Amino acid sequence: MAKKRGKRKPTYVVGVDLGGTKVLAAVVDGKGNVVSEAKRRTRAEQGPEAVIARVARTVRDAIQGADVPARQVLAVGMVAPGPLDAETGVVYCAPNLPGWEDVPLAKTLSQALEVPVFLENDVNAGTLGEHVYGAGQGTRDMVGIFVGTGVGGGIIADGKLRRGFRGNAGEVGHMIVQADGPVCGCGNRGCLEALASRTAMERDIREALDSGRQSVMADLLKDGAPITSGMIAEAVRQEDELTLKVLAQAQRYLGLLTASIVNFIDPEMVVFGGGVAEALGKPFLKPIRATARQYFVNQRDVGQVRIVLAKLGDYAGVLGAATIARQRLGSA
Amino acid sequence: MAKKRGKRKPTYVVGVDLGGTKVLAAVVDGKGNVVSEAKRRTRAEQGPEAVIARVARTVRDAIQGADVPARQVLAVGMVAPGPLDAETGVVYCAPNLPGWEDVPLAKTLSQALEVPVFLENDVNAGTLGEHVYGAGQGTRDMVGIFVGTGVGGGIIADGKLRRGFRGNAGEVGHMIVQADGPVCGCGNRGCLEALASRTAMERDIREALDSGRQSVMADLLKDGAPITSGMIAEAVRQEDELTLKVLAQAQRYLGLLTASIVNFIDPEMVVFGGGVAEALGKPFLKPIRATARQYFVNQRDVGQVRIVLAKLGDYAGVLGAATIARQRLGSA
Repeated sequence: MAKKRGKRKPTYVVGVDLGGTKVLAAVVDGKGNVVSEAKRRTRAEQGPEAVIARVARTVRDAIQGADVPARQVLAVGMVAPGPLDAETGVVYCAPNLPGWEDVPLAKTLSQALEVPVFLENDVNAGTLGEHVYGAGQGTRDMVGIFVGTGVGGGIIADGKLRRGFRGNAGEVGHMIVQADGPVCGCGNRGCLEALASRTAMERDIREALDSGRQSVMADLLKDGAPITSGMIAEAVRQEDELTLKVLAQAQRYLGLLTASIVNFIDPEMVVFGGGVAEALGKPFLKPIRATARQYFVNQRDVGQVRIVLAKLGDYAGVLGAATIARQRLGSA
Repeated sequence: MAKKRGKRKPTYVVGVDLGGTKVLAAVVDGKGNVVSEAKRRTRAEQGPEAVIARVARTVRDAIQGADVPARQVLAVGMVAPGPLDAETGVVYCAPNLPGWEDVPLAKTLSQALEVPVFLENDVNAGTLGEHVYGAGQGTRDMVGIFVGTGVGGGIIADGKLRRGFRGNAGEVGHMIVQADGPVCGCGNRGCLEALASRTAMERDIREALDSGRQSVMADLLKDGAPITSGMIAEAVRQEDELTLKVLAQAQRYLGLLTASIVNFIDPEMVVFGGGVAEALGKPFLKPIRATARQYFVNQRDVGQVRIVLAKLGDYAGVLGAATIARQRLGSA
């Protein structure tokens, strides 16, 4: 790729992470270094057209900040949440982006920026980012699990991102861990997401508070705003009994899920990321690891399967997006 | 392979399925046709050495029956139950074969027969057999689920049998479907095997009988022998209420597991085999399929993911073993 652009000139791609509250764009070189970045509020309430225009502006800002000639920027890799078609670049719908329904994001942005734009699901890209540049470097088979408002995931199999037959692989949040358990956002029952996401923890904490339980969460949550990973971390620091109990439950379910995954596809590594994992750090992993190992069906060398924290934080998405852009340019 | 054996002469491998009660050996040509076969009782109580000698005799019988020159038989592919090391050909232990502990099965048999012997886990081989010659022909990604005394499985990913990082992929029976559910043979709780295997069904049926419930199973089970898939099929034919209820529960859990698998790795097909599936036939699948589809997180075109019955019955193992022998000869 880029043969005609001169043998010595470095090439760049822009990785973009479009979220419900902010847009992050990073100019990334061939080695995964972020040369420059730009950030903007999404202002999702203004609708798809305005949001895409803001994304384009953010990309241009990042390129200007990098001080590289535009022709050395080969493509944009972009990640968005929710159901989308990576091949056609269409976002089917996005829970955090009102009015987004069958939006041809890649095409519209490509026309605005005059470079190819490739779209990918955010947790798939995050998993790929961790695999290529983060915690999973050097592994052939890993699974990423991202615990935040929901629980998403991605699979690296045989060194490659696994998209799946219908383009839906990695939906770990909707693996059933407790048949007939609590109702999930998807409408079914007992999915991991209904047991171990921040939303599930918030539900359990609010229920306990409503029934008169004492907790520092009563103060933290008093304005009715949704729980944040920072609040959970703060309550843990204060050794809040209720939060510790609810968190321990979530960790137990995450451990059971990890065991199911290991018993099923037998990967080399499971990487935990997302807001909750980042806010709590290593102590978050310990009980997950203990439960998982107890449930491994192969009890030989349980430590061989590494269960670790993600390393890239907010950059997993943009670095994964950049990787996808380069891969798909190469195969285009 | 086999370059020196003449360009026109067909080559054969012998597929062997070693079970707790019988040994089946089949001479298989390059197209997967069973040219001849031989069967013997395992007589597991006589211990590893005697059993291996009986396996060797069964292989020789099958070759004699095929009426092909011994030098056209390139290798033996062999499957055995339970934890084993496919690479070194050692059976770690085998619940149905008393006294088997770290038995160098491949090496011993290879010395006796003077051909290379390759070992594989039985459900992995069954999945491979179904993929190459059975229900999964033409798919790139499929999962095999075999429901019998236990529940085993195998994965075909990107057209190849997935063994996993520690050689343990496909243990669908130990994916956790009901956290804190009934105790499993592995010592943990809530594994699929503790909810949906024939053993789990027998447990529930005997409990109901003990508490005075009426059922044709009272007669069928009266001599204390373990339940068979044939008994379950017979009770279903007689529309026995208890059996139908217990079976429906098992099918529901199998449906939930199928959804977990589809939501996770998004395969093209899930194939159900094993004694219970074979004895009950297509009606066994219907409720599994309905539950699974309800729990798919991607509700677009749920019918695209095919959930079907295995086609090869007892031959899945020997044909998978034969395939493995040819593959490993080729890469040796």
